[in-house]
Amino acid sequence: MENYIYYTPTKVYFGKDEELKIGKIIREYNPHSVLIVYGGNSIKRIGLYDKVIKSLKEENIQYLELSGVIPNPELPLVYEGIKLAKENDIDFVLAIGGGSVMDTAKDIANGVANPEDDVWDYHLGKKKPTKTIRKGTILTISASGSEMSNSCVISNPSTQEKRGYGSDLNRFDFAIENPELTYSVSKYQTACGIVDIAMHTIERYFDLGEETNLVDDIALAVIKNVFKFGQIAYQNPTDYQARAELMWASSLAHNGLTHSGRRFLLTVHQLEHVLSAFDSSIAHGAGLAALWCSWARYTYKYCFDRFLKYVHEIWNIEGNDENAILEGIKKQEEYYQSIGMPTSLKELNIKKEDLEMLALKCSQNKNRTIPGYCPLGYQEILDIYNLAFEPK
Amino acid sequence: MENYIYYTPTKVYFGKDEELKIGKIIREYNPHSVLIVYGGNSIKRIGLYDKVIKSLKEENIQYLELSGVIPNPELPLVYEGIKLAKENDIDFVLAIGGGSVMDTAKDIANGVANPEDDVWDYHLGKKKPTKTIRKGTILTISASGSEMSNSCVISNPSTQEKRGYGSDLNRFDFAIENPELTYSVSKYQTACGIVDIAMHTIERYFDLGEETNLVDDIALAVIKNVFKFGQIAYQNPTDYQARAELMWASSLAHNGLTHSGRRFLLTVHQLEHVLSAFDSSIAHGAGLAALWCSWARYTYKYCFDRFLKYVHEIWNIEGNDENAILEGIKKQEEYYQSIGMPTSLKELNIKKEDLEMLALKCSQNKNRTIPGYCPLGYQEILDIYNLAFEPK
Repeated sequence: MENYIYYTPTKVYFGKDEELKIGKIIREYNPHSVLIVYGGNSIKRIGLYDKVIKSLKEENIQYLELSGVIPNPELPLVYEGIKLAKENDIDFVLAIGGGSVMDTAKDIANGVANPEDDVWDYHLGKKKPTKTIRKGTILTISASGSEMSNSCVISNPSTQEKRGYGSDLNRFDFAIENPELTYSVSKYQTACGIVDIAMHTIERYFDLGEETNLVDDIALAVIKNVFKFGQIAYQNPTDYQARAELMWASSLAHNGLTHSGRRFLLTVHQLEHVLSAFDSSIAHGAGLAALWCSWARYTYKYCFDRFLKYVHEIWNIEGNDENAILEGIKKQEEYYQSIGMPTSLKELNIKKEDLEMLALKCSQNKNRTIPGYCPLGYQEILDIYNLAFEPK
Repeated sequence: MENYIYYTPTKVYFGKDEELKIGKIIREYNPHSVLIVYGGNSIKRIGLYDKVIKSLKEENIQYLELSGVIPNPELPLVYEGIKLAKENDIDFVLAIGGGSVMDTAKDIANGVANPEDDVWDYHLGKKKPTKTIRKGTILTISASGSEMSNSCVISNPSTQEKRGYGSDLNRFDFAIENPELTYSVSKYQTACGIVDIAMHTIERYFDLGEETNLVDDIALAVIKNVFKFGQIAYQNPTDYQARAELMWASSLAHNGLTHSGRRFLLTVHQLEHVLSAFDSSIAHGAGLAALWCSWARYTYKYCFDRFLKYVHEIWNIEGNDENAILEGIKKQEEYYQSIGMPTSLKELNIKKEDLEMLALKCSQNKNRTIPGYCPLGYQEILDIYNLAFEPK
């Protein structure tokens, strides 16, 4: 087991009606002025916006709004938020939404606190933020895990890059998680969320590391429950328990719990970010679903025992040979198909002739190898993209 | 699933040599003066004391010492620590040890920050602390989980009471967990720790609540790993992985992770505290081992399905009837015996004629009923003590 730091300071208020406390919770931080960040009209449609505004007014909390965050959120809106916040003495950011909104809020908070920096430099790994301002979130979709994670992923449309960075300053002070707020999430978005949550933990489970048995077993418990309750929520969007299990899994899948003592690489995420940066209509979860099974078939020989335990636990496969693993991968493929997720790049409308260009981007022009039990350089990345184009 | 707040702000530095960073870590808080709290000579024997002092001196950190904490730690030493701290402008407490040392440190930190309060009132539930001072810990035994918990248990020798209270102010700012520091823990203390860790999560699993499937599965993963790696550590005290799995389980078993969405009652702990308050030579873990199987046999009918899942998962028992459950309880009894733990009150040298008095104390003179699937008033508590005296 490798040394590690475990740090999950985000205070989670979980359950029905918890969002009604938002005014009182923010009041504890006594901010001068709050920037509310959100996407489109969905938070108004479900009545959440009005509840939040009412609660803030009851506590006489000043606020401004920044809306318009889109999936695969973009750098220009981050810059706009930073500018707005600086001009208005904002010292607290409240994200209402999913991963795109939360990551936009994280970058704004860091940008405000470090006015001399260009936040994009954090994404390029050229700089690290040294401070931040307070921030909280009200979650409206279970997917990204950004509500408890240290990560922030933003797309830069001018360079077609989508890049994330990790920092404990990216952790929210609090997260409000009311599963009922996700009842109206569409089947498709629910499915994308299921894949994203599961993948956060599957990736950690398959990341490099020495033996970590307890952490592995916790990871497998998370994955099993995501698949089980994901399917229930997909079929019955207002099943409270299913939405709740999924929401809590979302937070635990990405807060560090499931990789304590292991490396943290998220290999398939690296393969996917290139796709949704290239075509922003590709949902992150859909991209992951389209890639995982091919990645698994390409790499399982390099961590055979882990794969064996995985298919035993997750897919109840018996047997201890290669066929057991391949059968498990097949089951996962069928599961993804059962919730309407793509399992090939072709389904994402990616063209065969784009694969080389994508592999070049992913390998940063053949300058990086993604580490792992099976390290992935340009050629291996291209092989996996080819395999994933139209798996047999 | 019930609403809950999840809050685990303690920053954990886990792994070999992490204690060498202590000076630098405390320097981040920039304290005026540190009170180091510990027990006897064991931290000197293993060289830990010298390492800590050297590291503090390198950072020019002022410190004072309070030693002499005993198992089932007592209120008078807490008062002494508060007095010493107030007289010397202490604004940081560093605990080096196990649960007794950590809980003493917690009460001292709260006592210093709330000089108008008598900390015993917190234990009696008459008052709550409203602030605290910074504190950290270096763990030397895996058992209590106090390093990440919100709980603080202290004994009052003048009233023969042992009482705990929960407060987020009881959470350490950081915990240093180096499994190698537990290599020298005796077989007996290792076994007491195994029981304590397992019981923190077993109790949560059997506490009242609606369905919480993910949390249950995580709880079962913790319990399974504690039993598995506990036995390895018991047999080979310098097995790094076993000590590490046990140490991390200790923290996760009691930080809130395994009861999110469930009530938090720790029923068998209530039955045990009376024993070790009555006879302070009784180790908490040993008292829990002596009680659990009898409690389980008395109550399993009231939460049959949970018990069934428990014996399936933890003891690999097949079958779905009463016999399966009883067989699982028997296996747990045998496991405790295999690591030298008592499974009867007789082995703790408790006398049959004391049981009524103990049941009276535990029921607070027939004034309280411990809630649960099977609520325990005076008569039920006495029944369980009688069953546990010498189980067949």
